[in-house]
Amino acid sequence: MTSQRREPNVVVLGGGSWGTTVASICSRRGPTLQWVRSEETAKDINENHRNSRYLGDEVELSETLRATTDFSEAAECADVVVMGVPSHGFRGVLAELSKELRPWVPVVSLVKGLEQGTNMRMSQIIDEVLPGHPAGILAGPNIAREVADGYAAAAVLAMPDQHLAANLAKMFRTKRFRVYTTDDVVGVEIAGALKNVYAIAVGMGYSLGIGENTRALVMARAVREMSRLGEAIGGHRDTFAGLAGMGDLIVTCTSQRSRNRHVGEQLGSGKSIEEIIASMNQVAEGVKAASVIMEFAEKYGLNMPIAREVDAVVNHGANVEQAYRGLMAEKPGHEVNDSHF
Amino acid sequence: MTSQRREPNVVVLGGGSWGTTVASICSRRGPTLQWVRSEETAKDINENHRNSRYLGDEVELSETLRATTDFSEAAECADVVVMGVPSHGFRGVLAELSKELRPWVPVVSLVKGLEQGTNMRMSQIIDEVLPGHPAGILAGPNIAREVADGYAAAAVLAMPDQHLAANLAKMFRTKRFRVYTTDDVVGVEIAGALKNVYAIAVGMGYSLGIGENTRALVMARAVREMSRLGEAIGGHRDTFAGLAGMGDLIVTCTSQRSRNRHVGEQLGSGKSIEEIIASMNQVAEGVKAASVIMEFAEKYGLNMPIAREVDAVVNHGANVEQAYRGLMAEKPGHEVNDSHF
Repeated sequence: MTSQRREPNVVVLGGGSWGTTVASICSRRGPTLQWVRSEETAKDINENHRNSRYLGDEVELSETLRATTDFSEAAECADVVVMGVPSHGFRGVLAELSKELRPWVPVVSLVKGLEQGTNMRMSQIIDEVLPGHPAGILAGPNIAREVADGYAAAAVLAMPDQHLAANLAKMFRTKRFRVYTTDDVVGVEIAGALKNVYAIAVGMGYSLGIGENTRALVMARAVREMSRLGEAIGGHRDTFAGLAGMGDLIVTCTSQRSRNRHVGEQLGSGKSIEEIIASMNQVAEGVKAASVIMEFAEKYGLNMPIAREVDAVVNHGANVEQAYRGLMAEKPGHEVNDSHF
Repeated sequence: MTSQRREPNVVVLGGGSWGTTVASICSRRGPTLQWVRSEETAKDINENHRNSRYLGDEVELSETLRATTDFSEAAECADVVVMGVPSHGFRGVLAELSKELRPWVPVVSLVKGLEQGTNMRMSQIIDEVLPGHPAGILAGPNIAREVADGYAAAAVLAMPDQHLAANLAKMFRTKRFRVYTTDDVVGVEIAGALKNVYAIAVGMGYSLGIGENTRALVMARAVREMSRLGEAIGGHRDTFAGLAGMGDLIVTCTSQRSRNRHVGEQLGSGKSIEEIIASMNQVAEGVKAASVIMEFAEKYGLNMPIAREVDAVVNHGANVEQAYRGLMAEKPGHEVNDSHF
């Protein structure tokens, strides 16, 4: 006779497209509560099983998903916390959470990017604000709308403790959403923070009319460049060849829906970065990340030519032709051991 | 005062699209002779600077490229041999060459694939037929027509001797064709032989209407699967995350011009492999490679789920839906250490 164990309550914080999609997935496996700021969104989720604002009218969410705007209600019942709030609000929400969250509750971040000002990874912020709570990150080639529409996809759940990772992975897993595990938290987070910069580089290339060979060239060299920095920081190179690295890069560089690719294309058409940012209603993380990579590159004494050229265009007034000319002027050396483009 | 050294004569054997493109590149750097079987092609190259049969009428070749149908003339003058003949004729041409080629002349293969019957890599055939001649392989995301049209692209030249590799790389390098070097001959050849099978898998996916996430998922897992076999045979995993691995895979899986992707799509539309092969005027290497991978998988005791499903469709009458269902049924584990899909 197997005993009936209490199912863990999953609490997803954040009402965006990916947070909502993950919440809907989790609610198919067990009790799930989503905390959102907007009353309207909460009502939309609870009554219409939709998040029309972020996922449009066609995506039907799980009927068992419940949303609330009551932060305390969410914090108190959480056995697992999933963080879907953007990087600029991440620390603030965790600080609120720390007042009410029970000890040892694992916190899984869905957020790609670094904290502005500190350049901290999300798991580092979790460690700082909620010490003792196991921190994980879920990342991969996951266009929210496609996952929500039921297309097959995969992600990797990175946590130091593989036993816990394997257990938590089950909560996110469906027939069509494959969740792998890894212990390389640093690698997954660095890949997530960097890939947007390389998507801008490929986007700039589209505007110049680069071929398919060229695109693959830039992407292969981008994986090598990311990997070099990632390893210097403490990640494993296999991660950069995996779902959160190359996998996410492929989607970010090729998808028409990619904001960062779009930024690169717009830069190539001669628009200024200010104009481009003003015309978008969502943040393109790669814009901020370009200068951050250059800080890391200097700190670790690394040559990061693709990031350097993106930074030159985004932050220092260079144009896209100059950027590509700068890359092509570098002499190719040993594919793995040399650090040139 | 620098002394004027004699420039090496590059001899390219084979009149196909990629051999011609590489010959044209080499002839911009130094004296280059291309051996082709067809009088008509030789005349087209010499008089019109075109290879209309394989590259169409619009691609203009270097004016200094000279073609011949006289095999002895080519063999005798060669200081460097570039092998552009398909895998089924590779050994025969080398055997002819062995009667006339001067000692120590390096032989660089452009050919992706394994010898049927023996499953030998092209560099192994060179070692066997022309012992003492350094063997190299040039590979990467190189759609011939795009390189011929002058779009930027890159390849990796793999040879055990890095000093020689660096010297030979110069002969292939132009402002728009970047040639990196590596010592991982095995990895580059295995990647080239395997990637077509994975392009068939992605092609099958297109026919099922998979999303961009799904495509990235299959490609990321394909790199891991190739890497696993490649390492067992003696390659380095970095190669599979590089130009000849992931880079070539991206192009092969996404390009509309990819024959292997096309095979996968046709299989998905319900055609038999015999019909598909009969309708194509060029060989899709992945069809043969699928069963070869399964032999390797057995020999090294490896689980190769994507290749297994492609093999099931191509050689054992399974349909595309069953293949994808078979993959999705596998339980995802540790991203790097587990061998499941």
